[in-house]
Amino acid sequence: MKVYFDNASTTPLLPEVIDIMTSVIADSYGNPSSIHRKGRESKIIIEEARKIIAGCIGASTGEIFFTSGATESNNMALFGAIRDLGVEHIISSPIEHHCILHTLDYISENNLATVSYLDVNEEGHIDYNQLESLVKSSSKKCLVSLMHINNELGTINDIQAIAEICSDNNAYFNCDAAQSMGKLAINVQDTKFSFLCGSAHKFYGPKGVGFIYIKNENMIKPMIHGGDQERGIRSGTENLYGIAGMSKALSIAYKQMDTRQTQLKQLRSYFLSKLDELEDIKINGSKEHVADNIVSVSFPKTSKSELLMMNLDISGICASSGSACSSGVENDSHVLEHIGHDPKRKTVRFSFSHLNTNEEIDYAISELKKYTPIAKAAV
Amino acid sequence: MKVYFDNASTTPLLPEVIDIMTSVIADSYGNPSSIHRKGRESKIIIEEARKIIAGCIGASTGEIFFTSGATESNNMALFGAIRDLGVEHIISSPIEHHCILHTLDYISENNLATVSYLDVNEEGHIDYNQLESLVKSSSKKCLVSLMHINNELGTINDIQAIAEICSDNNAYFNCDAAQSMGKLAINVQDTKFSFLCGSAHKFYGPKGVGFIYIKNENMIKPMIHGGDQERGIRSGTENLYGIAGMSKALSIAYKQMDTRQTQLKQLRSYFLSKLDELEDIKINGSKEHVADNIVSVSFPKTSKSELLMMNLDISGICASSGSACSSGVENDSHVLEHIGHDPKRKTVRFSFSHLNTNEEIDYAISELKKYTPIAKAAV
Repeated sequence: MKVYFDNASTTPLLPEVIDIMTSVIADSYGNPSSIHRKGRESKIIIEEARKIIAGCIGASTGEIFFTSGATESNNMALFGAIRDLGVEHIISSPIEHHCILHTLDYISENNLATVSYLDVNEEGHIDYNQLESLVKSSSKKCLVSLMHINNELGTINDIQAIAEICSDNNAYFNCDAAQSMGKLAINVQDTKFSFLCGSAHKFYGPKGVGFIYIKNENMIKPMIHGGDQERGIRSGTENLYGIAGMSKALSIAYKQMDTRQTQLKQLRSYFLSKLDELEDIKINGSKEHVADNIVSVSFPKTSKSELLMMNLDISGICASSGSACSSGVENDSHVLEHIGHDPKRKTVRFSFSHLNTNEEIDYAISELKKYTPIAKAAV
Repeated sequence: MKVYFDNASTTPLLPEVIDIMTSVIADSYGNPSSIHRKGRESKIIIEEARKIIAGCIGASTGEIFFTSGATESNNMALFGAIRDLGVEHIISSPIEHHCILHTLDYISENNLATVSYLDVNEEGHIDYNQLESLVKSSSKKCLVSLMHINNELGTINDIQAIAEICSDNNAYFNCDAAQSMGKLAINVQDTKFSFLCGSAHKFYGPKGVGFIYIKNENMIKPMIHGGDQERGIRSGTENLYGIAGMSKALSIAYKQMDTRQTQLKQLRSYFLSKLDELEDIKINGSKEHVADNIVSVSFPKTSKSELLMMNLDISGICASSGSACSSGVENDSHVLEHIGHDPKRKTVRFSFSHLNTNEEIDYAISELKKYTPIAKAAV
């Protein structure tokens, strides 16, 4: 049996997304910047996509900019806020994605801004009081950059609370929504984001394309200069097929959000119940505020668990030992390290899709039983 | 009849490119950074593509980095050379693509480096003696950034001469090869590039993907920080389908280079002979060193020529009034301005593909005769 439980790393493309991409690839080759017929055809595809994405998240079309993915979007937000908005202090957390943390390392090393990291507890939650007091006490213009859903733990940040703290204290808020876009009902009318970043391949769209929402009142200048595409904010001939595929994927995600959530809650609950059959299991991350699709499981150290990832792979089960966005080697996770996870235990992140089934979970559990002790009650 | 004569702006995708892209879109969704089976499948696609592209241009695989296109690649080269290689003086020309010129504007305005522009003559040629004397006399570490083929005129720079001047004088050389990649036999073993930038959609590959060759000895640091993809030089989950399509397109371009050149030379020659049927025509750009696929034609001002572009479009002929990479409006061309082109005349860039035919040229000429005076001999 082949089982894909690594949907937080990337998702398979929906058939509807494949259809629109293959159709655009075959038929639409004009340069969207060309004023002739073939150019206009492509331009329409891009502007329709922009309208759809803006509509999903309650933004105006003038606030949506296409990029190569959330990594580029987050880089744009952080560097742009410093360069164009007078930000001198960035407040973040140590369990953000590397596209934030490595950018902040660069910012810090080059003295572009002061960087502060919030404490996180063992569930991966930040301390909102600490955030408020840091923002309030900062003598410098602040940007708060916090992810919506942690990619390794599934812990959900209270973006409404963060946005209000920022808004009340005249700070900007960049939200890395790579894990939540299309999964939770994000709307920029309800939550005061300054920047919001998403990647298509996390919501059943294509890889290599994403977007950034930039609130009109905090517009920044480009990071990539050139032919003034994306109204001058992001130059370079557009990834036409990717943009078309992304908008299709996001519109379907918003339409199916409730049913997908229900399916994922059921899968999660079934998986957790089946995990009871294994001995000495620990679930990492938040107990209460957690994404439906992510379950980070910590297994006891045994002779067999050392090679757990490799054995799951041999069994046809794709899961992750941490974030996928790294060098392709099994590194220690900075997230687990910061929540005080016992490094001797072996952690696997199972991340589900609404397309997964209970049968796949049964299979994964039966395979896990080969490599980790079985609970006495289940023997 | 529908005629596409705007191949310097962007090209249609080859059937073989469409095939590989649709196959990768349908089958390969793993994150290349994931260590499991689905991840490795995707990783192999990317590394195979890297090997093919490196092979085409004589580079080592460790010198090829995938980006969202030549615009990003050129930005990386310019900013990286300043930041990481100690470059304090950039020498370029005023008829480069906007991805160079707008980046240089930014560099100049922010005092990141001194920027000098070479003179260009009425054919769009730089003065190699001036280049040599500028590089020699500069007290600062220099980067020379010059395109291989001018996108509006087709004028070909002598990259061998430029590379030698740079190499002899310890200057770096960034070559924007967007227009020449896959058309001329570029090989980094023969020509001493420091950086070389290409975009897939100019050589019958997909939009939104490109690459940069960075010579091993002048490796730079990333512009986009994150999950350390592309060996840390360019983070962000890879555009898998785009990369696969690009490598297929470039390998075919190298295989068919000679036959395509022959076809294009024939088309160009036929087009030029037919243009003789029109009155008071001027061909812009180099007479001797010009790309086979680009013909920039300047028409006399008449009441009808004002709307020439629009009328050609209505006739089903896609051509360009300048570079496509702009805001979608018909701007005055900075290239034509710098070669002393008479702004009263109307210029159209016809750019051919080996897929075009003499019949298409006949049709275009017959339509042009409706909007511009016919030569007396041809009446």
